[in-house]
Amino acid sequence: MIIDKALYRSGRRDACGDLSDELEAIRQTGSETDFIWIGLKDPTMDELEEVNEELGLGLHPLAIEDAVKGRQRAKIESYGRAVFVVLKTLSYIEATSDVETGELMVHVGEHFVLTIRRGELSPLAGVRRELEADREKLALGPMSALHAIMDRVVDQYREIDVELARDIDEIEEAVFSEGLVSSDAIYRLKREVLEFRRAITPLIAPLRMLHTSPRTALPHDELRLLFRDVDDHLHFVADRVESYDRLLSDVLSANLAKISVQQNADMRRISAWVAIAAVPTMIAGIYGMNFDNMPELHWHYGYFLVLGLMATVCVGLYATFKKVSWL
Amino acid sequence: MIIDKALYRSGRRDACGDLSDELEAIRQTGSETDFIWIGLKDPTMDELEEVNEELGLGLHPLAIEDAVKGRQRAKIESYGRAVFVVLKTLSYIEATSDVETGELMVHVGEHFVLTIRRGELSPLAGVRRELEADREKLALGPMSALHAIMDRVVDQYREIDVELARDIDEIEEAVFSEGLVSSDAIYRLKREVLEFRRAITPLIAPLRMLHTSPRTALPHDELRLLFRDVDDHLHFVADRVESYDRLLSDVLSANLAKISVQQNADMRRISAWVAIAAVPTMIAGIYGMNFDNMPELHWHYGYFLVLGLMATVCVGLYATFKKVSWL
Amino acid sequence: MIIDKALYRSGRRDACGDLSDELEAIRQTGSETDFIWIGLKDPTMDELEEVNEELGLGLHPLAIEDAVKGRQRAKIESYGRAVFVVLKTLSYIEATSDVETGELMVHVGEHFVLTIRRGELSPLAGVRRELEADREKLALGPMSALHAIMDRVVDQYREIDVELARDIDEIEEAVFSEGLVSSDAIYRLKREVLEFRRAITPLIAPLRMLHTSPRTALPHDELRLLFRDVDDHLHFVADRVESYDRLLSDVLSANLAKISVQQNADMRRISAWVAIAAVPTMIAGIYGMNFDNMPELHWHYGYFLVLGLMATVCVGLYATFKKVSWL
Amino acid sequence: MIIDKALYRSGRRDACGDLSDELEAIRQTGSETDFIWIGLKDPTMDELEEVNEELGLGLHPLAIEDAVKGRQRAKIESYGRAVFVVLKTLSYIEATSDVETGELMVHVGEHFVLTIRRGELSPLAGVRRELEADREKLALGPMSALHAIMDRVVDQYREIDVELARDIDEIEEAVFSEGLVSSDAIYRLKREVLEFRRAITPLIAPLRMLHTSPRTALPHDELRLLFRDVDDHLHFVADRVESYDRLLSDVLSANLAKISVQQNADMRRISAWVAIAAVPTMIAGIYGMNFDNMPELHWHYGYFLVLGLMATVCVGLYATFKKVSWL
Amino acid sequence: MIIDKALYRSGRRDACGDLSDELEAIRQTGSETDFIWIGLKDPTMDELEEVNEELGLGLHPLAIEDAVKGRQRAKIESYGRAVFVVLKTLSYIEATSDVETGELMVHVGEHFVLTIRRGELSPLAGVRRELEADREKLALGPMSALHAIMDRVVDQYREIDVELARDIDEIEEAVFSEGLVSSDAIYRLKREVLEFRRAITPLIAPLRMLHTSPRTALPHDELRLLFRDVDDHLHFVADRVESYDRLLSDVLSANLAKISVQQNADMRRISAWVAIAAVPTMIAGIYGMNFDNMPELHWHYGYFLVLGLMATVCVGLYATFKKVSWL
Ligand SMILES: [Mg+2]
Ligand SMILES: [Mg+2]
Ligand SMILES: [Mg+2]
Ligand SMILES: [Mg+2]
Ligand SMILES: [Mg+2]
Ligand SMILES: [Mg+2]
Ligand SMILES: [Mg+2]
Ligand SMILES: [Mg+2]
Ligand SMILES: [Mg+2]
Ligand SMILES: [Mg+2]
Ligand SMILES: [Mg+2]
Ligand SMILES: [Mg+2]
Ligand SMILES: [Mg+2]
Ligand SMILES: [Mg+2]
Ligand SMILES: [Mg+2]
Ligand SMILES: [Mg+2]
Ligand SMILES: [Mg+2]
Ligand SMILES: [Mg+2]
Ligand SMILES: [Mg+2]
Ligand SMILES: [Mg+2]
Ligand SMILES: [Mg+2]
Ligand SMILES: [Mg+2]
Ligand SMILES: [Mg+2]
Ligand SMILES: [Mg+2]
Ligand SMILES: [Mg+2]
Ligand SMILES: [Mg+2]
Ligand SMILES: [Mg+2]
Ligand SMILES: [Mg+2]
Ligand SMILES: [Mg+2]
Ligand SMILES: [Mg+2]
Ligand SMILES: [Mg+2]
Repeated sequence: MIIDKALYRSGRRDACGDLSDELEAIRQTGSETDFIWIGLKDPTMDELEEVNEELGLGLHPLAIEDAVKGRQRAKIESYGRAVFVVLKTLSYIEATSDVETGELMVHVGEHFVLTIRRGELSPLAGVRRELEADREKLALGPMSALHAIMDRVVDQYREIDVELARDIDEIEEAVFSEGLVSSDAIYRLKREVLEFRRAITPLIAPLRMLHTSPRTALPHDELRLLFRDVDDHLHFVADRVESYDRLLSDVLSANLAKISVQQNADMRRISAWVAIAAVPTMIAGIYGMNFDNMPELHWHYGYFLVLGLMATVCVGLYATFKKVSWL
Repeated sequence: MIIDKALYRSGRRDACGDLSDELEAIRQTGSETDFIWIGLKDPTMDELEEVNEELGLGLHPLAIEDAVKGRQRAKIESYGRAVFVVLKTLSYIEATSDVETGELMVHVGEHFVLTIRRGELSPLAGVRRELEADREKLALGPMSALHAIMDRVVDQYREIDVELARDIDEIEEAVFSEGLVSSDAIYRLKREVLEFRRAITPLIAPLRMLHTSPRTALPHDELRLLFRDVDDHLHFVADRVESYDRLLSDVLSANLAKISVQQNADMRRISAWVAIAAVPTMIAGIYGMNFDNMPELHWHYGYFLVLGLMATVCVGLYATFKKVSWL
Repeated sequence: MIIDKALYRSGRRDACGDLSDELEAIRQTGSETDFIWIGLKDPTMDELEEVNEELGLGLHPLAIEDAVKGRQRAKIESYGRAVFVVLKTLSYIEATSDVETGELMVHVGEHFVLTIRRGELSPLAGVRRELEADREKLALGPMSALHAIMDRVVDQYREIDVELARDIDEIEEAVFSEGLVSSDAIYRLKREVLEFRRAITPLIAPLRMLHTSPRTALPHDELRLLFRDVDDHLHFVADRVESYDRLLSDVLSANLAKISVQQNADMRRISAWVAIAAVPTMIAGIYGMNFDNMPELHWHYGYFLVLGLMATVCVGLYATFKKVSWL
Repeated sequence: MIIDKALYRSGRRDACGDLSDELEAIRQTGSETDFIWIGLKDPTMDELEEVNEELGLGLHPLAIEDAVKGRQRAKIESYGRAVFVVLKTLSYIEATSDVETGELMVHVGEHFVLTIRRGELSPLAGVRRELEADREKLALGPMSALHAIMDRVVDQYREIDVELARDIDEIEEAVFSEGLVSSDAIYRLKREVLEFRRAITPLIAPLRMLHTSPRTALPHDELRLLFRDVDDHLHFVADRVESYDRLLSDVLSANLAKISVQQNADMRRISAWVAIAAVPTMIAGIYGMNFDNMPELHWHYGYFLVLGLMATVCVGLYATFKKVSWL
Repeated sequence: MIIDKALYRSGRRDACGDLSDELEAIRQTGSETDFIWIGLKDPTMDELEEVNEELGLGLHPLAIEDAVKGRQRAKIESYGRAVFVVLKTLSYIEATSDVETGELMVHVGEHFVLTIRRGELSPLAGVRRELEADREKLALGPMSALHAIMDRVVDQYREIDVELARDIDEIEEAVFSEGLVSSDAIYRLKREVLEFRRAITPLIAPLRMLHTSPRTALPHDELRLLFRDVDDHLHFVADRVESYDRLLSDVLSANLAKISVQQNADMRRISAWVAIAAVPTMIAGIYGMNFDNMPELHWHYGYFLVLGLMATVCVGLYATFKKVSWL
């Protein structure tokens, strides 16, 4: 259930033996910025409580409950000097244009970072390596690990934003050129946008608080700048997502309008043809009457004259309707 | 009318004799966190005033008025060091997809918790047992009972959120696959969502205030964390409910659009059939004319040729209409 | 023009002689909470200025201007230690479902309460009697009279809320069961809701300020609790009214959609009948042709066979249309 | 280019000689509240800079730029102890229901008020006379002149509000009684409402700031009360304008719906007539067939019976359609 | 890659030699307001880091990352006493009514201004010359250069606002006079408005902060006034853009409604013609029946009477339809 562990001392990675021993050692002799990174995946309540007690992490029962139960809003909470963060990890499935949401909990305490992953998405791949490559940052202590994680998660938001923007462009293109888009597809995209937005929005206020409030446990001003950068990127995405829902509403109604206009034009065309056919029918009816005295009937070319009349009228109507674009 | 009573001393339940005597005893000798829990149901003004005087609870007349009259907004008010809370209890009736709202008032004063239930819903079943099982929390005094109650009420909100989300999914499914949903059903669901939202929204601000304001009567930081947890869960629900109304508006207009498109397609189909029938009618009319000189009439196979012509034209039109999906 | 006067000393009513003498006496010897209540109705500028000077009330010219001109927003303004309040009084006319708005100005100064009523609505009937019955409250001084008035006015808002909610329920019922509601009626109700909302909304912020701001002239904490109670009731109404406009918009578009769906269904039905009639017309046309060689014409039962064919086709079409609910 | 000048000493108007001399005199010997009022109209950059230098007004180049360029938002800016105000002056043209916007800049400095008018609207007519009549107010110094101007401008907003409200009422009346309103007219009114709103909204926040902020240069509390009164009137208008846009949106869609319902009803009526005519046509077709053996053809009253049948069916259909309101 | 450089001493331009030498000299001996202006275009990460190190500018890695990566929100960030600004530069392409967005980064540190341009748009042309012409402003130090740049950028926003307003007017004109506007064009304009808005909105809050917050590094009050002026102009544009989206939504639905009304009118017209033709068809059918006893058939002028009847009915119907505007 512990899927990962690492020990960082003075900005560089050290061999990591038994977790409780190493943690004890750091507490005794380490500098404030030395820390251990422990990675869990889908722990049960019992497992997490066991880790908590064995390593003496001092996790609050409420944070444990959140981490085990999942289905949380994104948030940043402080428990005394410790920080508990819930992040929504997003991924995009090209085949179905589907946004999928996972959860990642991070608990940053004295001398440790505990990450708990829920679901299959593993946004942490690579994060650790990058962080280890930047010793100055690593030397800022466990909060630098939190920054590295959040930076990655928010970078993924930017990537998904690009995908969704492309989906919206495609749908716009389709609606305005061919008019054969099902409202269903637009509505489905709206739902993905909503899912995206629900992942992002709750994080905005606490992230701002994290780097602006004087009460936050950020030992270095450099850390404030780092989190401000993440905040900025999050706002970039949030701004854009905000506009997608409105765009899609416009596209949706434009599409419906286009379908309706098309259907009405069809009806008009059919009716125009029926109207054209009604004229020869009427004329034929007249010369099908059985009056004794109907001179035209006895004209030698009467029939052909009437046929000609019918054709003339039909062609005339056809031309008229064509001119006003009814046909 | 007093439907429940219990005495808690140093985090555990004690036998509870006459209420005034016990309360008097606690006031004299008890620690600050000892308290009595009194449960009422639908008290009249007189009954509640009697309890208030006999036990010397010091309830404010305005709080009594609210508790008796009911039909209140959810709120958290302080009267000096006492706290008066109005909660909306919600339940979900599967058969009708109906959300039902009840009221629960809680008055937390020195050494006592007074709960007043209005309506049949009894959200307190089990709350007391759970609280008694957690002695540490119980030892935090009467506010821990308030937390236990609010935690339960908000957990019920989460359950109802799940039900409503399912109802919305079902309606979406129906709209986008079969198109036979009555707008009535969607509108009705919107009303339930509104009822849900009205129960939740007014609680947000005072609950936040309760655990963040330095002036609140929360003797332990642990209590602040507990109420912050409830706050977090309430926000989780509030976020989701916020989006339901918009979703349902979209579904509603998608449904109407679908019905309209369907009706227009029906009209187009009928008109197409009428147009097909108009052609043989016109031809027949022509050969029903009574001109003396109509050579075709005397051809031996004239009739059959014309029948063939009619059939050809009809089949041709049918094929054309089929191709452009009008039939 | 002075339609009412009363003198309150130490929480009970005393005989009230000449107003200037009594007021002078109170100023000399009375306790801080003794006061005179003066009631005016539709005073002119001159009348009000005369009262102001004669009694030495010290009303500010701007307050006088507002009181005389009327057509004000609801508001609570302080002029030094005095408070000037404009209230919108509402009433509901059952016959027309109409909300009507009146105005009530209250000026609370040292040792006096001046109420100025505009329009026929007299919300003060009974307020004085109730206040006189509650000596403790009366003993809190002139601000207790302001509370009594505002409490009454806001209670009337609650009553009107009930009426409007009922009107909305009726309209919903009508739209969703019979579909014969004119959009006009819904729109009219929206306007009444708007009128209601415009009366309520401006009062929210200053009323909150009144009982929370440390700078307000509220000599007793008890008065703060009393105004907080009015504030709470006002919020209750405001919350509900807020949702009415949205509900009515939904109802309005649901109604329009229902009408449109109905009209389209009518058209489909008529067209279906026309389509049914087109078939025998076409067949009859065929056998009305004058070809020499049409064998069926000479069959002994040809006519009856064709009649049978026509009937069969018509019945078949009828059954088909019935099955797809076009008829 | 200087179109007006006046000198006010101790609350009364004095003869005003050469502007620079008078201003110099006031600076030397005058009390703080003595001031000169200078009125300009459409000055060029050079003219305004010349006035500024000659009189030593100390206008900031940015304020000069705004005053000359025009096309500003309404605003209240302080430059040190001086105040620069941009007001949008509105007028209403009855013939076209058009709201027209002008600009008025006011610069209040030590011992002077400089008003710059752009466009033909002259809202200042009469303002000066009224102010001169109220010596107490005039004695409050140059800010009293600013108050007199703003009070007038906002009073004009109230007048325009009355006109627009009347226009909206007329359009509502028309839409709901006759249904012959062009959407164009409603849309045009929306634009005027928008123009109105854009003039008003930016002024709200700085005006509130002006009379509430302790940092504003308002030497007398009386001035704060005066500006609060203008603020109150501005809010009155702003509240109402806020609702107009929504009202007009509702009216717009109600109108479109009405037109659409009307058109559909027309179609239904035409189709019903066509359906009625289809029945005798069909019957006539049947008896126009040329079968040898059609017994009815030889009945003596066959023709009249069929005519009767046709009439009966048509009348029956007509009655039916009438009953369901299709005709 | 360095496309521009300049040295400003005591408010005037000096010859600028090697950048590092000059910068070193200023640091040693210059007054606080002397500075160098360096202009870059599309630098790579390596190039920018090299400049940073060589000149000892002390740019923060996060600012470098933003400047190189681009695709940022407009923002104003402080890094210690330095300020990093991202601006969106906009231009308008008349041919396509397209708004195009570029990026301009400005880094203001001690004794230097570094501008980094992304994309082809060069908003800085002329800015430098203007600034150099205003020595007083230039003498305020490097922040005066930032002001000159922002002033220019925001002035360009105003120009684009004028263009968009004209486009909107044209579209309104078209919709309300001819009704031949494609929804596509309106939607496309909405997107440009959105692009405009997204460039502007994020700048509003930090710009306000820049000139109001006491913590900002603005050495002169004069600079605060200058930035407040830019802020004011930005608000002017923001106010207007805010209303464009709503206007275009109204225009969009007005256009759709117009198209729909037009199509329905066409259908009504066609149907009316068909209805007119149905009457002679019906009459002709009647006199085409083959009854033995049809007296009219034998009248000498029967045929002509019937023709006259048909003509009369048709003309009557035509007149009726014309009167109710169906034709
Ligand atoms: Mg999807
Ligand atoms: Mg998804
Ligand atoms: Mg990043
Ligand atoms: Mg990064
Ligand atoms: Mg895709
Ligand atoms: Mg109450
Ligand atoms: Mg229900
Ligand atoms: Mg319910
Ligand atoms: Mg819970
Ligand atoms: Mg819990
Ligand atoms: Mg269900
Ligand atoms: Mg939790
Ligand atoms: Mg007033
Ligand atoms: Mg009414
Ligand atoms: Mg009314
Ligand atoms: Mg009340
Ligand atoms: Mg009451
Ligand atoms: Mg009623
Ligand atoms: Mg300016
Ligand atoms: Mg106009
Ligand atoms: Mg105008
Ligand atoms: Mg006024
Ligand atoms: Mg006035
Ligand atoms: Mg008018
Ligand atoms: Mg006034
Ligand atoms: Mg960045
Ligand atoms: Mg474009
Ligand atoms: Mg563009
Ligand atoms: Mg500018
Ligand atoms: Mg400028
Ligand atoms: Mg253009």
